[in-house]
Amino acid sequence: MKIIAAKKILRANEQHAERNRANFNKAGVLTVNMVGSPGCGKTTFLEALFTELDGRVAPAVIEGDLASTIDAERIEKLGVPVVQINTEGACHLDATMVAAACDTLELDRIGLLVIENVGNLVCTAGFDLGEHVRIVLLSTSEGDDKVAKYPTIFQKSDALLVTKSDLLPYGNFRLPRVADDMKRLAPKAVIFQLSAVTGEGVQQVADWLVEQCRRDVKVSR
Amino acid sequence: MKIIAAKKILRANEQHAERNRANFNKAGVLTVNMVGSPGCGKTTFLEALFTELDGRVAPAVIEGDLASTIDAERIEKLGVPVVQINTEGACHLDATMVAAACDTLELDRIGLLVIENVGNLVCTAGFDLGEHVRIVLLSTSEGDDKVAKYPTIFQKSDALLVTKSDLLPYGNFRLPRVADDMKRLAPKAVIFQLSAVTGEGVQQVADWLVEQCRRDVKVSR
Repeated sequence: MKIIAAKKILRANEQHAERNRANFNKAGVLTVNMVGSPGCGKTTFLEALFTELDGRVAPAVIEGDLASTIDAERIEKLGVPVVQINTEGACHLDATMVAAACDTLELDRIGLLVIENVGNLVCTAGFDLGEHVRIVLLSTSEGDDKVAKYPTIFQKSDALLVTKSDLLPYGNFRLPRVADDMKRLAPKAVIFQLSAVTGEGVQQVADWLVEQCRRDVKVSR
Repeated sequence: MKIIAAKKILRANEQHAERNRANFNKAGVLTVNMVGSPGCGKTTFLEALFTELDGRVAPAVIEGDLASTIDAERIEKLGVPVVQINTEGACHLDATMVAAACDTLELDRIGLLVIENVGNLVCTAGFDLGEHVRIVLLSTSEGDDKVAKYPTIFQKSDALLVTKSDLLPYGNFRLPRVADDMKRLAPKAVIFQLSAVTGEGVQQVADWLVEQCRRDVKVSR
């Protein structure tokens, strides 16, 4: 009984996700589902990214958090349209939450929609939100064993952003170990090393995202 | 229907948790449920703790992970009895998993049983494992807004361990902000600042745990 219920929820989510994706395609919006542990640097990366994009595409953000509007306030300061979803305890966003948030956004005016998921390296892996690209963040301070220990979410990601490279001198994080684990789990995923403090890698991710916008959205319109 | 099912699962878990707690009390074992984000330093803290305890109490560990035996191997190297639970995708431990793990441990020979939960700052909050004490870890590199953003788990904890204090000079983590949020959510919780690199605070946590062993277990035997 429990298994059937879980399957039903996932099947319903898939249908809502497909509907979201159709809407994003129609509006020509590239949508990114951004996942990672609490404190891996998701919002800080977005602040750096939007400065780097400098108008090349028009961004918007959906912020997923258990509580508070801390992250949405940070995005709002940059003049980027943002919707905060408070899950009130739920451990991940689902496609219906994203659909409701999209109703408050003018999709036709947006080129890149980033959905910042709840900080959670486990549960966010199971729910398609209708995105085109899934990006997982891993900070160097979390340790280089995390791909091996939390394989599901890394396996389902199109890009890995290794954040906080400025902290590398103060720990024992080995990028080759992470790259090896990723090669095994997600051989097609691209890997970027970056730091919002020094600016390392931010331009490369911005360029890659602009390229994805051209490829995924413009072609499918 | 879904809500009823969830309630049923939680009620069944509570019953198993009470059974676990009764077993722990009978055997005179203080049991700690240790929670925190992936990479917040749970296993590294245990390595430092067991060295610091130096035989004052006999420890054992239950390791909860989605996959791999990486953490259990680290504990085994210290000569501490350890059981690895692989949840195969599940986002938290529950009381039945802990009961099964306990069947493989000689509880009568243990003074302090630490259950290292799956790295997850959300889902682990909802499941009592039968522990006496719940400890949440937050690393300075995760940022000082996490208590406000993930209130449930902090509210339900008896102690907060602020880890990786050696990284404080390289970030903008403000302990007073965290302490203020904890005071509001969990006024009785004790807060320790520590670093497994410099050794700061490890002795204080060890002393506090030995004190809890005396108070919670010896008295109740």
